[in-house]
Amino acid sequence: MTDPVQAHDLQAFLIRVFGALGVPEDDARIVADMMVDADMLGYDTHGVFRLRQYVNRLRDGGCNPTAAVRIVTESMATAVIDGDNGLGHLALKTATELAIAKAKQTGIGWVGVRGGNHAGPAALYVRPQAKAGMAGFCAAVGSANHVAPFGGTDLLLGTNPIAIAFPSMDPDPFVLDMATTVAAVGKIKVLAQRDEAMPEGWMVGRDGRPLTDPAKRSEGFLLPIGGPKGYGLSLAIGLLAGVMNGAALGADVVDFTKDTENKTNTGQFVAAIDLAAFGDPDTIAKAATRVFAELRASEPLPDHEPVRIPGEGRSAALAQCLANGLDLHAALRRELDVIADECDVARL
Amino acid sequence: MTDPVQAHDLQAFLIRVFGALGVPEDDARIVADMMVDADMLGYDTHGVFRLRQYVNRLRDGGCNPTAAVRIVTESMATAVIDGDNGLGHLALKTATELAIAKAKQTGIGWVGVRGGNHAGPAALYVRPQAKAGMAGFCAAVGSANHVAPFGGTDLLLGTNPIAIAFPSMDPDPFVLDMATTVAAVGKIKVLAQRDEAMPEGWMVGRDGRPLTDPAKRSEGFLLPIGGPKGYGLSLAIGLLAGVMNGAALGADVVDFTKDTENKTNTGQFVAAIDLAAFGDPDTIAKAATRVFAELRASEPLPDHEPVRIPGEGRSAALAQCLANGLDLHAALRRELDVIADECDVARL
Repeated sequence: MTDPVQAHDLQAFLIRVFGALGVPEDDARIVADMMVDADMLGYDTHGVFRLRQYVNRLRDGGCNPTAAVRIVTESMATAVIDGDNGLGHLALKTATELAIAKAKQTGIGWVGVRGGNHAGPAALYVRPQAKAGMAGFCAAVGSANHVAPFGGTDLLLGTNPIAIAFPSMDPDPFVLDMATTVAAVGKIKVLAQRDEAMPEGWMVGRDGRPLTDPAKRSEGFLLPIGGPKGYGLSLAIGLLAGVMNGAALGADVVDFTKDTENKTNTGQFVAAIDLAAFGDPDTIAKAATRVFAELRASEPLPDHEPVRIPGEGRSAALAQCLANGLDLHAALRRELDVIADECDVARL
Repeated sequence: MTDPVQAHDLQAFLIRVFGALGVPEDDARIVADMMVDADMLGYDTHGVFRLRQYVNRLRDGGCNPTAAVRIVTESMATAVIDGDNGLGHLALKTATELAIAKAKQTGIGWVGVRGGNHAGPAALYVRPQAKAGMAGFCAAVGSANHVAPFGGTDLLLGTNPIAIAFPSMDPDPFVLDMATTVAAVGKIKVLAQRDEAMPEGWMVGRDGRPLTDPAKRSEGFLLPIGGPKGYGLSLAIGLLAGVMNGAALGADVVDFTKDTENKTNTGQFVAAIDLAAFGDPDTIAKAATRVFAELRASEPLPDHEPVRIPGEGRSAALAQCLANGLDLHAALRRELDVIADECDVARL
């Protein structure tokens, strides 16, 4: 670890980099804020760490710096948004806001995205719903195919993450944000950057044998959770987030790291469900809080930490980072310096 | 296996049993048809096999034979239905039809259920959506707590299944129907009835060690898929299907097998998403079919069957059963005879 970095310095740095690559300042600010939020909330594999990929794609034409996000089609409770191949955060943030607005009118809003790109952690697109007294639901087609169908050997599916948020009376809402694979690619990339091995069970080679060297990740594939179940869930997400929106799934998914020149047509969806359409929101949130307390009070298994509720502690982590700055790994810090030099902007 | 049973004979038998327990004939017919459909579609752990549990609860007052399913609250795209503690199929079938009707109006319909009961396989409540050119989505709070929170030892969560359907041009729609645990309770009950052992990895004891005797299932707990991920997913489903609808979750879940006298207040939800609100339905279904073909064409892993698409072959199984009858396991056949004698109706 290096010295802590202040959030606003990191945001300003990201805005400088995006600006140098032709992204208008308003858009750059939105994405920078969300990337830094991701780090401060503890989703550091999907925050600033991803800048290298975004920079390469903006530089090489794979991602449109001056995207105009627009609604393609709309019904009372649904819409499809075209991200115009811009930075993925822009389309998905618009989708989240639209889903919340629709949910206020009709009880639920479901907004799909096509023409998107990698948008950071899905958690960012369900937390606003919980804040608004709604359940949030988001999923995405992964930005590269690292997964084979169950029993097969061809890389045709992504980690296809899913996030679900639910209001509670605790300091944090319930926020689940999970890949449908045992490990997410982000975690493996972090291990590769730090030159550390993967545990067995994360990946297998094409011969079906365990793969533990993160540098050799292109020689095998990620394992879905629960075997055929995770495969089925990943495919279902692909259909709802990709195919239904006219976005890519299967063989037409572009690996957004290897290919920096072509449009990915990434698909995602965001839904918001207004608790007020189901009953008294406070009564519902209190019932959730009661269940969370029961779960936390469960006697731990031998050698286990106390039971945790997904999302717990994220607000405290954010507050801590705002007060004391972010601890960036030295390898990431070096990479940011390289990017600064490449883009000819002031270093962090 | 015994001689095949004709579907209509099995339906008539179930109607006789439900009738003897006070269920009106129209309701009995709906539930009987769905239970036999479940068997014919291959969901035999959640079809006629569950009659014993339904009979015990109807007999002992835990389930209301003369339930009046009603809408409690409604918005343009959402509703909550109270199942009046009747057979679970009745409320969830009503919810499915209402979700589809709402989706035609607003693009998506999401209907929650409280006061429900075990309703057979969730697949039954997403297949109609696919037939109507919609994506279907259903989940339920499991009818007993067989799962501990990740790292804990108290049984506070169920297998909380999830089903997702999506239209395609193939003979079958995509239909995923999975428990969020490595194994479903139904499969363990079938092994217990047949006196066969469970594989390691399905359950552990309170000491964290593997449990393989299905008769000892009450001494341990089911393992969620992907450890903390399956735990989080199960809890998220519990919030959306239980807490949000004013239904049970956590400590207030009644074990519907052990307790045959008390209301379970089971919660479920069903959603329907109209493809027509997202684009041309045929174009979307064709894109799904293209992806399925790519997945099937994947070279299998050594010693693996060819890749399958969830839901594949279900229509053919149904047609085969309609033509040639259903093969019921001898143990189930004997149980049905016992039930017939108990209810004083003609045996199958």
